[in-house]
Amino acid sequence: MDKVRVCVDAVGGDEKPEVVLAGIEAALEADADLDVLVAGPEEVVAGFCSAHDRAEALVAPEVITMEDDPIQAVMTRRRSSIVLGCRAVKKGQADGFFSAGSTGAVTAAGTAYVTPFKVELDGRRSAIRPCLTNALPNRAGGLTVLCDMGANPDVEPMDVVRFAQMGAAYASCVLGIDGPRVGLLSNGTEDHKGSAFTQSCFPLMAENVEGFAGNCEGTDLTSGHFDVVVCDGFAGNVALKSIEGAAKFMMQELKSGLMSSVRGKVAALLMKPVLRGLKRKLSGDAKGGAVLLGLRGVVMIGHGATSVEAVKNGTLACAAAARQGLVDRVADSMGAVA
Amino acid sequence: MDKVRVCVDAVGGDEKPEVVLAGIEAALEADADLDVLVAGPEEVVAGFCSAHDRAEALVAPEVITMEDDPIQAVMTRRRSSIVLGCRAVKKGQADGFFSAGSTGAVTAAGTAYVTPFKVELDGRRSAIRPCLTNALPNRAGGLTVLCDMGANPDVEPMDVVRFAQMGAAYASCVLGIDGPRVGLLSNGTEDHKGSAFTQSCFPLMAENVEGFAGNCEGTDLTSGHFDVVVCDGFAGNVALKSIEGAAKFMMQELKSGLMSSVRGKVAALLMKPVLRGLKRKLSGDAKGGAVLLGLRGVVMIGHGATSVEAVKNGTLACAAAARQGLVDRVADSMGAVA
Repeated sequence: MDKVRVCVDAVGGDEKPEVVLAGIEAALEADADLDVLVAGPEEVVAGFCSAHDRAEALVAPEVITMEDDPIQAVMTRRRSSIVLGCRAVKKGQADGFFSAGSTGAVTAAGTAYVTPFKVELDGRRSAIRPCLTNALPNRAGGLTVLCDMGANPDVEPMDVVRFAQMGAAYASCVLGIDGPRVGLLSNGTEDHKGSAFTQSCFPLMAENVEGFAGNCEGTDLTSGHFDVVVCDGFAGNVALKSIEGAAKFMMQELKSGLMSSVRGKVAALLMKPVLRGLKRKLSGDAKGGAVLLGLRGVVMIGHGATSVEAVKNGTLACAAAARQGLVDRVADSMGAVA
Repeated sequence: MDKVRVCVDAVGGDEKPEVVLAGIEAALEADADLDVLVAGPEEVVAGFCSAHDRAEALVAPEVITMEDDPIQAVMTRRRSSIVLGCRAVKKGQADGFFSAGSTGAVTAAGTAYVTPFKVELDGRRSAIRPCLTNALPNRAGGLTVLCDMGANPDVEPMDVVRFAQMGAAYASCVLGIDGPRVGLLSNGTEDHKGSAFTQSCFPLMAENVEGFAGNCEGTDLTSGHFDVVVCDGFAGNVALKSIEGAAKFMMQELKSGLMSSVRGKVAALLMKPVLRGLKRKLSGDAKGGAVLLGLRGVVMIGHGATSVEAVKNGTLACAAAARQGLVDRVADSMGAVA
C-alpha cells in the first residue's frame, strides 16, 4: 500500500491516553505502510514514540477538554494537540488527523488551520462551510451517509447543495457506492413537503446534485432507500441523537425485559454474541468516526467515549481516506477553485 | 364515571373498517359510561350501530384516504367521516373525535372545523397554531411528551412557547405529571447552543413557560430527563421518524442476528414475550394516539397501521381526555381568550 502518515490526538476523548496509545499501536500493527505522528504532552507521547519505530512525537503541552468552549479554546490554546494536529495536516507533515476529542474544537481548529476550499460564486471566491459527516448502518445491510451532522446549525440553501455534493463524493470514494442516491431530509417524502427552508433547497438540489432522489424522512436514515441524506446541521444533530437515544432505549428495555424472568435470563445468555454484535455495529467504533468534509486535508473525529478498537479504526480510516484521495474528490464534486 | 360521547372514524387508517369496528366494540365493553358516534358510509356503520345500544351512526358517504392531498380533500369532501367527525365535536354532539386516518387531513379538518383558541397579542386577538402531540416511552420508565410532532413545519418563536405551554398542560392533565420539566429541542444542552431560531425561542421560553429546564438534545426524547420536549414541527417530525426508523432497524438486526445460529433461534423462542412487549410499547397502540392541542375540542389521531387494540385505546383515551377537561386546561395554560 502507499506510504501514509496520520497524526493522532493522544489526549482526545474521555478515556485515558493509554487507551488511545493502545489503539495507535494496533493500527501500526495492522498497516505496515502507516506512520503516525502522536500529538500530546511530552510525558504522554515521548515513551510511546521512542518504543515504536514508525511513531514520531508531536509535543503539544496544552490540552483542550470536552468541557472547554470550543472556539475559545482553539483560539487561545495554540499549542494543544488539536491545533497542532490540524496544523501538521496543513503543513503537509501528516496526510490526515484523527482525534476522539471535542467535536466542536476539532471542527473549529480544522476550519481555522486546515482551512476549507473556496468556490466561485457570482464572480467572487468564497470559502465553503465544512460539513460533519458520518455513515450509519441501515436496514439494507449497507451504510447511509448523513451530512451535516451538526457543524452548521444555520445555513443557506447553497450550503446544503454543497453538503450533498461532498456527501456523495464521500459515499462513492470512501464507501465505494456507485452513483449514490441523495435524499433531502424533510417531514415527508412528497416533493411539496418540507419547511420553507427545505423547499428552497429542493430546486437547487435538483439542478446541482447528481443522484438527487427527492425528499426523504427521518426513517430513511436507516431504511437503506438512500445512500446520502442531507440537511442543515441542526436537523442532522437532532436526527442522529434521536437515533442514539432510541438505540439506548431499546437496549435497556431488552435487557430489563430479559432479566425479569428465568426464561429471559436464559435467552439473554444465549443471545450475548448477538447483543454484542449489535452494540458494536451501533457504536460506530468499526467505522472509525465522523469526517469533516470540505477541508484541504483529511480530518476525522471519533466518539468521545472511545476505545482501543475505535482509535485503531479511526486511524486506519484516516489513512484509507488519504490513500483514496478523498480531499481531491470532494474538491472536484463542488468545483472548488483552490 | 361521567357519561361521555366520542365520535370515531370508522374508515380511518389502512385496515378494514371491521378492525375499527371491533376496536369500538372493545371500547364500549371496557367503559359502561361511554357512548359512541360512528362516522362512516352507511353500509359500514348502520349494521354495527343497530346492533349496539350505545352506538349511533353518523353517516358520512365520502372517504378521505391516506393518499389524498389533506387540505384539498378536507375542503372538497365535506361529507367525509373526518370532516363530519370534527363538526360533531364543534357542535357539541360529541366530546371528542378519534381517527386513525390521514394525520394531515385530521389536522386540517380539526383546524378548520373544531377551530383553534385565540390569544390576545399586542391588543389583537389571533388564532394559535394547533400542535400535534404524542408521548414516547422513556428510559426512566415514564413518558416524554413531544410537541410539535409535525403539524407546523414553519413557526414563530411565540408559537413554540405556546406548544410548550400546551404540552405541559397535557403532561400534567392527561399523564398526571406534577410540575413537568420542559426542554427546548436543540443541538446541545448548553444555553448558548442552538440554531438562530431556537436561540430566539430560549429567552421567551424562560419568561413564559413554567418548568422550563433549558435546552435538550435528541437523546432526551427517550432519556427521561425531560417530561416535555418542544420544537417546531419540522424538527419534531424528523426526530420522531428517526426514532421510528432506529427502532425498526434494531428489531430487524436482532431478529436476523438470532436467526443466524441455532443458539440464537433458541434464544429467540425464549424471548418472544419480551420482544412482543417491546414491540407493543413502541407501537404506541397502548397510548391511543397523538392529540391535536389548541383546538376547542378533543381530537386524537391514531397510527394509520391500526389494530383493534389501537382503536380501543384511542377511543378510551379520547373519553379520558374529555373527562379530564384537557381542552380547558390547555386554554388556561396559554391564557386563551375564547
